[in-house]
Amino acid sequence: MTQLEYAKRGTLTPAMRAVARSEGVDPKRLLKEVAEGRAVIPSNRLRKKSRICGIGKGLRTKVNANIGTSADLSNLKAELNKLKAAVEYGADTVMDLSTGGDLKKIRRAMLGASPVPLGTVPIYEVAVMAEREKRRIPSITAEEMFAVLEGQAGEGVDFFTIHSGVTMDTVECLKKEGRVVDVVSRGGAILIEWMAHNGRENPFYEEFDRVLDLAKRYDITLSLGDGMRPGCLADATDRAQVQELIVLGELAKRAKEAGVQVMIEGPGHVPLNQIEANILLEKEVCQGAPFYVLGPLVTDIAPGYDHITSAIGGALAASYGADFICYVTPSEHLGLPSVADVKTGVVAARIAAHAADIAKGVKGALDWDISMSVARKKRDWQRQFKLAIDPVVARQYRKRSKPASKDVCTMCGQYCSMKISDKYLR
Amino acid sequence: MTQLEYAKRGTLTPAMRAVARSEGVDPKRLLKEVAEGRAVIPSNRLRKKSRICGIGKGLRTKVNANIGTSADLSNLKAELNKLKAAVEYGADTVMDLSTGGDLKKIRRAMLGASPVPLGTVPIYEVAVMAEREKRRIPSITAEEMFAVLEGQAGEGVDFFTIHSGVTMDTVECLKKEGRVVDVVSRGGAILIEWMAHNGRENPFYEEFDRVLDLAKRYDITLSLGDGMRPGCLADATDRAQVQELIVLGELAKRAKEAGVQVMIEGPGHVPLNQIEANILLEKEVCQGAPFYVLGPLVTDIAPGYDHITSAIGGALAASYGADFICYVTPSEHLGLPSVADVKTGVVAARIAAHAADIAKGVKGALDWDISMSVARKKRDWQRQFKLAIDPVVARQYRKRSKPASKDVCTMCGQYCSMKISDKYLR
Repeated sequence: MTQLEYAKRGTLTPAMRAVARSEGVDPKRLLKEVAEGRAVIPSNRLRKKSRICGIGKGLRTKVNANIGTSADLSNLKAELNKLKAAVEYGADTVMDLSTGGDLKKIRRAMLGASPVPLGTVPIYEVAVMAEREKRRIPSITAEEMFAVLEGQAGEGVDFFTIHSGVTMDTVECLKKEGRVVDVVSRGGAILIEWMAHNGRENPFYEEFDRVLDLAKRYDITLSLGDGMRPGCLADATDRAQVQELIVLGELAKRAKEAGVQVMIEGPGHVPLNQIEANILLEKEVCQGAPFYVLGPLVTDIAPGYDHITSAIGGALAASYGADFICYVTPSEHLGLPSVADVKTGVVAARIAAHAADIAKGVKGALDWDISMSVARKKRDWQRQFKLAIDPVVARQYRKRSKPASKDVCTMCGQYCSMKISDKYLR
Repeated sequence: MTQLEYAKRGTLTPAMRAVARSEGVDPKRLLKEVAEGRAVIPSNRLRKKSRICGIGKGLRTKVNANIGTSADLSNLKAELNKLKAAVEYGADTVMDLSTGGDLKKIRRAMLGASPVPLGTVPIYEVAVMAEREKRRIPSITAEEMFAVLEGQAGEGVDFFTIHSGVTMDTVECLKKEGRVVDVVSRGGAILIEWMAHNGRENPFYEEFDRVLDLAKRYDITLSLGDGMRPGCLADATDRAQVQELIVLGELAKRAKEAGVQVMIEGPGHVPLNQIEANILLEKEVCQGAPFYVLGPLVTDIAPGYDHITSAIGGALAASYGADFICYVTPSEHLGLPSVADVKTGVVAARIAAHAADIAKGVKGALDWDISMSVARKKRDWQRQFKLAIDPVVARQYRKRSKPASKDVCTMCGQYCSMKISDKYLR
């Protein structure tokens, strides 16, 4: 049985208890959210993990880090270092998006090394397989696609991004509308190529029951991908995006009915003032299914700083109810991230998630800030470093710039407002 | 006459025309906003500047960069490099907050070098003067304080932060309430020391007319400082902060009546879900006076990344109507910023300001994003770099990670969604 099926029957599982414990929430409350599809626990039944993670209503906002090779940069060791850095800096899940090198070997190494849930986008392996066999993507049969899913499921992958919402209808909707950057989802583009050539419906839509059957056998959580996500502000919240969301809402309902855990992927590039509506729309159309957002980036003009553009959008999205933030690194739009980029991306996304958790009133979220502020007021530097989201960087800044008086910093020196007000306000 | 006085009489000045031209807005509309105190043009009549800057309703959100020495780090050349970097990366104004070295020499060098409006916090010079003369701050007379203001005004400083809202009443309010970190405004703390020792009211409150007279003579824009701004999330939007804002609202009214341009400074550290209320409150209580926010930082736990915590808060604040964002650098809370920190701080704040301008519907704001997205879709890398908010960093990322195929990047390689969808959607 899946976590969802247990929850529907009112049975608390060890995974639910573990999540409730780590979040400090009532296990029965969590069970109810899982039962009603408002929270998921991505955990392939074949894979042991040291960190079980719940995503959804009433829980901390979670952060995912995308790692993995590309044809241009394929180094297993580097990717394992990224995995390590991501987990060390607090990523709650990772996704292996490799498209270069020995995909199975890379994935197995990551599954072996990852203490956190690991997700994939199986259509990438399908595309790489085609290329290696010198075939074109459209020649791949639906049978072969499902064989890839089955293979990855058997290896223990915890959640799959499946672009079932890329249908003849949604593609037609996009064509009619016209866009500035068309499709920016790799999985979406691959499926569109397949559909256009074959003149046939997306197998992951047409045979969605088969996807469900497979997911159910392993208790893989489905992350319904947004192949139509906007890739620039001008394309945001357009008919194609919303049309796909409606399809995803229908499919999410079918998944829940089938006992398969499901979440919904969302944009992308979205103007700041459209974020609230996007979250509300997903929550309504998909009956509260956890919302997994990539960003959103609130401007297109900052390549090299998209960890910041997405931290702005992610914080806002999560404060309005998004449950799961996919990090964006500074190298987004420019190249595959380095280990340092992964670290920066995770920290920026965690800042966004935490700021949102305070706004959402997540239990205990503000306590961290209060502890830090008490240490700051006392000018207790060691404790500030210990509490910092990135103690290494905080220490580096302090070390670089030594004050004459140890209890202050070089910005204000003896004019430290906290030191002065200590004397005259107490 | 001040810009405000001209505007009240319906006279369009060269400064108003220059601002209207650079913003692409109707000069008469701008004149109306200046006349009613919803926009200011900080420009000391004694100082020529190549970039006149308007701040307020209907205009682009502006970004300020704080630079200046401290007793621990006092190097004029370094500060001039910071000034250069700040302006090069797009700061609309700078503030010289020096408290170390020869303050007058530093300020004059900055005034000479800065093409943008320059602001100061004159009480810092008062405190440094006391220290140099081996006197205590409370021994400084009100006369001496005003002499410092007069001196800086005569040098051509364009705007002054004056903490007139730190009064016996607001300090009492803060004491009664209790706070986690008390006062985090340097100017506020210095004045509290003075008031506590002397048992006397803040001269900048008691003799506010004298402040106004001085500001009017030079057309210095007053930036009414928030000495009671919250220095941690737990202290946000508390009675002391709001009490001070009420005082600032009263003083802003007096300033406008006297023909003195005025803006209001705001927090600080504010939970994401309290930002909208803070902006609304300022706009109501201060009758639409431009709001100049420091951040706000949406969490306390990220020293080393406060350019990000403040970009989140700044974007949100500006989208709700804040007009002017003070940057925060990565070294905030840890030490005086380096030139690189200044650059990063300016870029992060500009991202926030621009994202907000799109949300606010500022004329032409989205055009930049559309141009970038068109270049991205075409995989025209040179144009992307040219349009990037930081072309240098964007190029560096691209250079570091070279794809086999020149028109894509190493993240997706041949699976570039935009390249694939070009073929199958057109």
